[in-house]
Amino acid sequence: MLPKGITFADRFEGISGSAIREIFKVLSRPGIISFAGGNPSSDALPDALCAELARDVLLNDGKRILQYGATEGYPPFLESLEAYLREDFDFPVERKNILPLSGSSQGVDLLCKALLNPGDTVLTEDPTFLGNMQTMRLYQLNLVPVESDEDGLRMDALEAAVKEHRPKALYCIPTFQNPTGRTLAADRRRRIAAMAEEYGFLVIEDDPYRDLRYDGQPQPSVKHYDTSDHVVYLGSFSKLISPGMRVGFMVGHEDIVRKCTIGKQGSDLHTPMLTQAIIDQFLRRQLLHPHLHSILGPYRDKMHAMLDELKTFPEGTQHTTPEGGLFIFCTLPEGYNATERFPQAVENGVAYVPGTHFYPGGGHHNTLRLNFSNSTLEQIKTGMCILRTLFQTK
Amino acid sequence: MLPKGITFADRFEGISGSAIREIFKVLSRPGIISFAGGNPSSDALPDALCAELARDVLLNDGKRILQYGATEGYPPFLESLEAYLREDFDFPVERKNILPLSGSSQGVDLLCKALLNPGDTVLTEDPTFLGNMQTMRLYQLNLVPVESDEDGLRMDALEAAVKEHRPKALYCIPTFQNPTGRTLAADRRRRIAAMAEEYGFLVIEDDPYRDLRYDGQPQPSVKHYDTSDHVVYLGSFSKLISPGMRVGFMVGHEDIVRKCTIGKQGSDLHTPMLTQAIIDQFLRRQLLHPHLHSILGPYRDKMHAMLDELKTFPEGTQHTTPEGGLFIFCTLPEGYNATERFPQAVENGVAYVPGTHFYPGGGHHNTLRLNFSNSTLEQIKTGMCILRTLFQTK
Repeated sequence: MLPKGITFADRFEGISGSAIREIFKVLSRPGIISFAGGNPSSDALPDALCAELARDVLLNDGKRILQYGATEGYPPFLESLEAYLREDFDFPVERKNILPLSGSSQGVDLLCKALLNPGDTVLTEDPTFLGNMQTMRLYQLNLVPVESDEDGLRMDALEAAVKEHRPKALYCIPTFQNPTGRTLAADRRRRIAAMAEEYGFLVIEDDPYRDLRYDGQPQPSVKHYDTSDHVVYLGSFSKLISPGMRVGFMVGHEDIVRKCTIGKQGSDLHTPMLTQAIIDQFLRRQLLHPHLHSILGPYRDKMHAMLDELKTFPEGTQHTTPEGGLFIFCTLPEGYNATERFPQAVENGVAYVPGTHFYPGGGHHNTLRLNFSNSTLEQIKTGMCILRTLFQTK
Repeated sequence: MLPKGITFADRFEGISGSAIREIFKVLSRPGIISFAGGNPSSDALPDALCAELARDVLLNDGKRILQYGATEGYPPFLESLEAYLREDFDFPVERKNILPLSGSSQGVDLLCKALLNPGDTVLTEDPTFLGNMQTMRLYQLNLVPVESDEDGLRMDALEAAVKEHRPKALYCIPTFQNPTGRTLAADRRRRIAAMAEEYGFLVIEDDPYRDLRYDGQPQPSVKHYDTSDHVVYLGSFSKLISPGMRVGFMVGHEDIVRKCTIGKQGSDLHTPMLTQAIIDQFLRRQLLHPHLHSILGPYRDKMHAMLDELKTFPEGTQHTTPEGGLFIFCTLPEGYNATERFPQAVENGVAYVPGTHFYPGGGHHNTLRLNFSNSTLEQIKTGMCILRTLFQTK
């Protein structure tokens, strides 16, 4: 019971976080095979290299790294980040457009803080990333899901929703989407940028999986087609180097970035200098691409191993066939309930995330999200066999 | 100009951050003597030690440190933090009461998010810390300043304000307050805890300077007197080890901490594991007290040097005489204007923060905040001489 006179804020109405909490609690059970998280493989985490880099940066620039920094970022990191963005990305960028973040999901929080009022409508994919859904709900936004197909958001559904709801923003994960793994087709990316300009809404392009491509050809970013500065691009080093370091970045219109910078002062004042300095070294010493190269092969094998296993799931099971990322989304035939079956799956030694949690409107209990990056090939084989057995009957 | 259709959120009305921005921009001028920041001395930042600790923790527990962590904190840090709180602090604590933060100021943000609605009244000291004033304003709270004297908040003024405004919270920095350096008397601390219980409001006890005591006797925390869980205690390692690492903590009622944890998921998901692991090593290896011991002597000397210099300021100048912390607050005789004189001070090579920025209601242009920790004794002598000359005439 809360102390006398103290009450929770209205923004927490309907937010408990408890379902997901329970799911992630079971992951610490010894021996469990987890397809639940969005975690990089342990093998993909460069611990020995980071140990040397951390030591180096503290010995070489420790007094600056341990002191207060600017919210705008650690200057060497800003420099190497800007160069990285110019070389590896497909949109124009200047220093004033960049803000380092404590993970790209902080970007969603800051954009809501800077630009959105309670009651504003935000369009999302359906399903979409549950973490950012919760973040947006804490800003008391009206989330309106928009139908997708194999090529991502459907343009007819999007335009209809734009006309009906006059949204302030669209939140989307165009590449290897979470939870579906789908990639938005290039012509749709162009159309979204054009629609944002025509109707005047913000596009939050959340793109943390972009470089985890195992098959097919890279697509241009939505921001690439953005000639009117309606798109804010969010990137991350969480899936490439380390999620525990919490380093991401925002690229957007100067005034929007400026307002987010002021908003960030209250959130954490600045991203820790040390983690920025380590990522800086990755970029500066050209370590990112070789590291990335070393992780893509194993991730590709794992994805295909999981896709293979899905072939023998109950007849009528549908699943996405991603070209990259960390997730496969699976739709069991009508009548199956992945939400209800979850405790039993855990009992049998396997965890996943019931798909219902990714739908702004709930339902869809016959769906589940499967992560392949954080398991070995052996675990994928064993775990999928357990799930297949579990879902042999309704 | 913002892109078509995009507008800033209402919560930013009246918030520009520009005055302070301009002040801190000048600090990068070569050769400037800065009494403006709240920065630890460069000598006090343990860079070589942190380099070894960072390397060690990444070599020993790197896979866990680089992976996603729990919002609740890095388990070894939680363990050593709990032990530290039990040994060094004067209130009961259990694991469920603790949340690691990305700097203690994140605690103010999370408490506002968890417990306060727009329009709610929060009482503050007058003057108070401008950073957290901005954070609270972004939550559209009604800040009501309460008069202080040499012993901190005045109890008659506080009780009158409580009765008049029925506040949801009191935000205070009881020890070596920012910006005044004042310490709240023990009997007033007891009275605040009792008042919070009687009237039912939250007390945010922001206590980052606690261990920087150079003279006098330690005072009990407000939380020490809190028998009804109305006080949330915010602590920090920023002034003791490193502000650039952004590690602080919250101690409070289990349900409040739980709600702040959910709120933190959207802010930064978790404080980086690496910075938590480094602070953990400081605590675990008993390095904090020796380090603290090494910085207190020089800080004491600097504070007294600055106090000595103030003796020769214009007749009628008043200033606080802190027993610790980082700041001295100075009130020039009526008619002086430290706000207007700021550009000239910078021109002459010295920066401070005009006191007006710390007053929720503005005004008080004859006041200024002086920091002594980040300057050498020589710089204090020179800088104060420049200010004395500047303020020789109105």
